[in-house]
Amino acid sequence: MPGRRTPGLTVADIGEFPLIDRLTARLGPQRQDVVIGVGDDVAAIEIEPGRLQLMTCDVQVAGSHFQPERCDPHRLGRKVAAINLSDIAAAGGWPTHFLCSLVLPPETKLEFLDGLYDGLVEEASKWEADLIGGNVSRGEQMVIDVTLLGEVAGGDLFRRDGASVGEQVAVTGHLGSAAAGLALTRLSELRVASSARKQVLDAFETPSPRLAEARVLVETGGVRAAIDVSDGLSADLGHLCDASGVGVRIDAARLPVAGATREVAGAAGVDPSDWVLGGGEDYELLFTASPDRMADLVESVFSATGTRVTVIGEIVPADKGRELALVDGTRRGLDPTGWSHF
Amino acid sequence: MPGRRTPGLTVADIGEFPLIDRLTARLGPQRQDVVIGVGDDVAAIEIEPGRLQLMTCDVQVAGSHFQPERCDPHRLGRKVAAINLSDIAAAGGWPTHFLCSLVLPPETKLEFLDGLYDGLVEEASKWEADLIGGNVSRGEQMVIDVTLLGEVAGGDLFRRDGASVGEQVAVTGHLGSAAAGLALTRLSELRVASSARKQVLDAFETPSPRLAEARVLVETGGVRAAIDVSDGLSADLGHLCDASGVGVRIDAARLPVAGATREVAGAAGVDPSDWVLGGGEDYELLFTASPDRMADLVESVFSATGTRVTVIGEIVPADKGRELALVDGTRRGLDPTGWSHF
Repeated sequence: MPGRRTPGLTVADIGEFPLIDRLTARLGPQRQDVVIGVGDDVAAIEIEPGRLQLMTCDVQVAGSHFQPERCDPHRLGRKVAAINLSDIAAAGGWPTHFLCSLVLPPETKLEFLDGLYDGLVEEASKWEADLIGGNVSRGEQMVIDVTLLGEVAGGDLFRRDGASVGEQVAVTGHLGSAAAGLALTRLSELRVASSARKQVLDAFETPSPRLAEARVLVETGGVRAAIDVSDGLSADLGHLCDASGVGVRIDAARLPVAGATREVAGAAGVDPSDWVLGGGEDYELLFTASPDRMADLVESVFSATGTRVTVIGEIVPADKGRELALVDGTRRGLDPTGWSHF
Repeated sequence: MPGRRTPGLTVADIGEFPLIDRLTARLGPQRQDVVIGVGDDVAAIEIEPGRLQLMTCDVQVAGSHFQPERCDPHRLGRKVAAINLSDIAAAGGWPTHFLCSLVLPPETKLEFLDGLYDGLVEEASKWEADLIGGNVSRGEQMVIDVTLLGEVAGGDLFRRDGASVGEQVAVTGHLGSAAAGLALTRLSELRVASSARKQVLDAFETPSPRLAEARVLVETGGVRAAIDVSDGLSADLGHLCDASGVGVRIDAARLPVAGATREVAGAAGVDPSDWVLGGGEDYELLFTASPDRMADLVESVFSATGTRVTVIGEIVPADKGRELALVDGTRRGLDPTGWSHF
């Protein structure tokens, strides 16, 4: 087994992604039916020729991802489902079944769990995904771990590693809204219009997985690489560029930021670009396609779902780096300022 | 949605299995491809006619299931894998792929995680199951959640609910050994022979999933119902009887208890039957078959794997209850004294 000797080092010393790399390096070769294995947001295995099963999991920890004493359990349940559903969307697939493991402090209220379960099942049921099992254990801190299965036809699978130089980069919906909502939960004294407050809080608390949009993208054809924006645009573009071996140039002026997000940012004295680039939890789809296919993709998604798709930049050679072109003509590096757990 | 109003009630007030029943009651009808859904240790979905996918998950929480500062991380990794593999064995299947979610305190040592991962991958690899994904999050308490996929041919699936009156009940290996090992970790001053100490500690710390034995049982044919003994014989027999709508009579004299377990029990002043009935974590296979098939099953498993199978009782009508027949001719109820997390 590989592995440097690192006496005394802790996970806090190296951070989330180096930790994942380190653990992944300890694995041997994968089974032949593994199409996408560790290191991605979603695994894909070939269950029969041309038919792939998708599998993803996501853990929500009380105190870190949510505040049980302050959140609405029904909305939390919907969000936990949506986070996983978004990973299936980013693979071009549809969800089928899921498991839910709960670690619960003994003082957890039954009514909280009722709400959590109802929200989880409601969101998953919208997309015809069924809860088929799970687990409850006792612990000091509530933990909710959902493992979601999905499917996709082999040729339809979206991957992170398919982007090529010259392709355009596009994103569904708005970016930064969830970060604005998170800011509002922490700074409740901010004076913003109630409609803006509701819009960004909804984006943060009950994100909508882009499954319908992904289906249209698959049917329209032409997507070359995709990922969901869960860690912030910089980090997720970084994952896509790392996997594809390319660089990217994003036009700051084209980033789709909702008016409500700008309003909250103004009240908070924050540059909304920071929320777009580093905020995370938007659960929008980020994808690439050649310029001759992009217009058709944008149009098809809008006409079928009402969701706007915005072209925000283009894929460039790896040696050009990853840059944000600002309105004044200057450029800055797209540093991976996304969320790390440690 | 169903659900009684229970203001203020907590999970500690109702316990693990009523909690699962309560949450399960909130679900709607299942998809048609769900062969076994919530409420079982393993879910089964039909991925094509005659071919079922199995799915199980199990959470281990620091302080509750293991003591991170005292345990060997490699052995812990093996055990976490084995617990899940055992559920696949109890369904008559074989494992294929798994995900591992970790919640980690920031001060977690990298060397602990290296050992944990190596043990997990080593045990899973023995059975050709591949790690294909996972998740790391920060939390106060370490949590390890493994979700394991497996497969089984439709006609080969073992279920809990297939037992009928007149069938014999049998179990692989020994019962109570893991509980003896747990007792030794808590009462290290107990004076027992080192060979006995090693045997019961191994049973507790590195249980062996009965996948090879399950395969022989499938190939031999005749198993009518099965479950793994993870919560103690009383509780798991209870699950099987509940699902099958039957009663059971177990002969105390036939319970397979290892000499090492008897030695530890003697030193601890405990009746070893308590460990057999209520101890849990043995991860042996408990199954039923008609008397005319049982001898062949016992013989086949022993000749192919070297594992002894012991007939311990028989299935009786539900109205005869669930009883343990003692050596002196008296009977006592088999109360579900198994492990509840709350």
